[in-house]
Amino acid sequence: MKIAVDAMGGDNAPQAIIEGVEQARDQYPDLEFDLFGDPAKVKPLIKNNDRLTIKATTEEISMGEEPVRAIRKKKDSSIVRAARAVKDGQADAFFSAGNTGAVLAAGIFIVGRIKGIDRPGLTSILPITKPGADRHSFVYLDSGANAESKERNLVQYGYLGKFYAENVLKVKNPRVALLNNGAEEDKGDKLHKAVWQDLNAEEGLNFVGNIESGDLLYGKADVVVSDGWTANAALKATEGTARMLLTLIKSGILNGGLRAKLGYLFLKPVFYQIGKKMDVSTYGGAVLLGLKAPVVKTHGASDAKAVKNTIGQIRKMLTSGVIEKTVEFFSQASVVDKQGKNE
Amino acid sequence: MKIAVDAMGGDNAPQAIIEGVEQARDQYPDLEFDLFGDPAKVKPLIKNNDRLTIKATTEEISMGEEPVRAIRKKKDSSIVRAARAVKDGQADAFFSAGNTGAVLAAGIFIVGRIKGIDRPGLTSILPITKPGADRHSFVYLDSGANAESKERNLVQYGYLGKFYAENVLKVKNPRVALLNNGAEEDKGDKLHKAVWQDLNAEEGLNFVGNIESGDLLYGKADVVVSDGWTANAALKATEGTARMLLTLIKSGILNGGLRAKLGYLFLKPVFYQIGKKMDVSTYGGAVLLGLKAPVVKTHGASDAKAVKNTIGQIRKMLTSGVIEKTVEFFSQASVVDKQGKNE
Repeated sequence: MKIAVDAMGGDNAPQAIIEGVEQARDQYPDLEFDLFGDPAKVKPLIKNNDRLTIKATTEEISMGEEPVRAIRKKKDSSIVRAARAVKDGQADAFFSAGNTGAVLAAGIFIVGRIKGIDRPGLTSILPITKPGADRHSFVYLDSGANAESKERNLVQYGYLGKFYAENVLKVKNPRVALLNNGAEEDKGDKLHKAVWQDLNAEEGLNFVGNIESGDLLYGKADVVVSDGWTANAALKATEGTARMLLTLIKSGILNGGLRAKLGYLFLKPVFYQIGKKMDVSTYGGAVLLGLKAPVVKTHGASDAKAVKNTIGQIRKMLTSGVIEKTVEFFSQASVVDKQGKNE
Repeated sequence: MKIAVDAMGGDNAPQAIIEGVEQARDQYPDLEFDLFGDPAKVKPLIKNNDRLTIKATTEEISMGEEPVRAIRKKKDSSIVRAARAVKDGQADAFFSAGNTGAVLAAGIFIVGRIKGIDRPGLTSILPITKPGADRHSFVYLDSGANAESKERNLVQYGYLGKFYAENVLKVKNPRVALLNNGAEEDKGDKLHKAVWQDLNAEEGLNFVGNIESGDLLYGKADVVVSDGWTANAALKATEGTARMLLTLIKSGILNGGLRAKLGYLFLKPVFYQIGKKMDVSTYGGAVLLGLKAPVVKTHGASDAKAVKNTIGQIRKMLTSGVIEKTVEFFSQASVVDKQGKNE
């Protein structure tokens, strides 16, 4: 299995990317890597070129660039070249920590959608942090690839999430919920009321009803589907609040004198466990589900560990056959035919 | 100034309501109260009936009831009677901790909208928790009265929030921001792109651009406007995450042995300060802005302290003249005329 890596994308690239890739290579003997980037920058960082090949590129897409324009203009960028390697069958998956919009655009326009999928969904694996919960993570999509969504997009997300949870996270009969503004069946705007009915009518889904954004981390579902707009707002609020609370605790300890600092020392293991649970990078990167191959994006700020974890996640996707199963399901096209033509 | 109180609404009613009202009565010599409820339940709880009058009602609207239907059917419920007292000029404001939907419906259909306001916005006063911030709270609307919104609703929220921040929170030239999925001008779906332009064109507003849901508590704006759908999702995610993190810390301490318990003792003042900062009830209840009188709803779980704080907030609204200033502004109707007829 060969992974096409954008070696130039991310705040800590290429250093953190190369380090993470080498750690993953050492851990997984069945993986090979093509590293797309500037050889002058990439080569000196490589400790051992076993199963690593540098593919020289001459352009970079920066974090602030307009994505669709960038992938059209910069044909020799590491993002475009890595995506094209997957498209041409020279690699099995595409990994990047670079410009999110450009990675999504390269995924959709170069790697390509699975037949029957109208819009791929950006999929985050989020922690279930409730003390005593028997599962550790759930599948959340669309976390922000599409600002405007239609009914059938959300039903397709239900299946995309189900296949991911079953095959990659090994959850049996995953519980699928709809992110909505209340628990009851009749809650929501027109779109969400209609999607509730659609999801409930799907015999292939174990639909458990609505979930509110305040309950996301409580483990009430294995797959939470949402339009990209709402999911993005809820996810950012969740991350922002967690960050704020940790800031408040830190600031309280710094300004609390010796007593607070002692307290911190005693509670360090507790804070460490919480930090680990809340650390999204443990669970891997964001997957653009609905494409013909794994396209996975980690945070720009990812360190080598996050890169390594994300590559482990890509390997699981490749060995689990999740893409093949998704392709097979949508080739029968029930979700598409039922609700109108594939766009 | 007389406040019409729904004595029967809320998880701890009538006990917590009466206690909170008596505390507020003792603190503010200029306030009088009409308590709407079942005299058999209310009367025994009153310690001192100075400036308190019981208004006997025979019906209650429970938390789960369908709101609009409930206020139509239950004419002698505490919610309907208290709202009607305001409508009829027998009281200056309406307070409840009961069924949110019923309070909103009673506000809109009985107390009535200010001329020029299409849809009142449910307004939460949220904490700014960033260490060192020079302000402690901001105005957030519509936090969930309307699941579907139009451009002009959000522009009206800008002015409603501005008048509240200026008059009640005493913020000079309040900074107004739009909740959106990115910081840049061109972010968002069709609605939010259009609202950005509208808000930016309003000379009466100090519009500072977009804010993301992850930055809500960071003090970047004094007024954050949003469609009710998005604001509700972001607010619930914020509350849910804060609750979850506190649960995690508690559980870590309980399961961390003596060491963790000692750490907790040392850090108690820090946790206390954080809890106080995050405690929404310190900042008052949710106000349905855009009505002819203050209509304010606290959490169903409110205790006496939260009830007292909310009554202090109502008093500030009454003495500040915020409603009169809002009425005057919208009577000139620039925001309404510009964008179409008042519905």
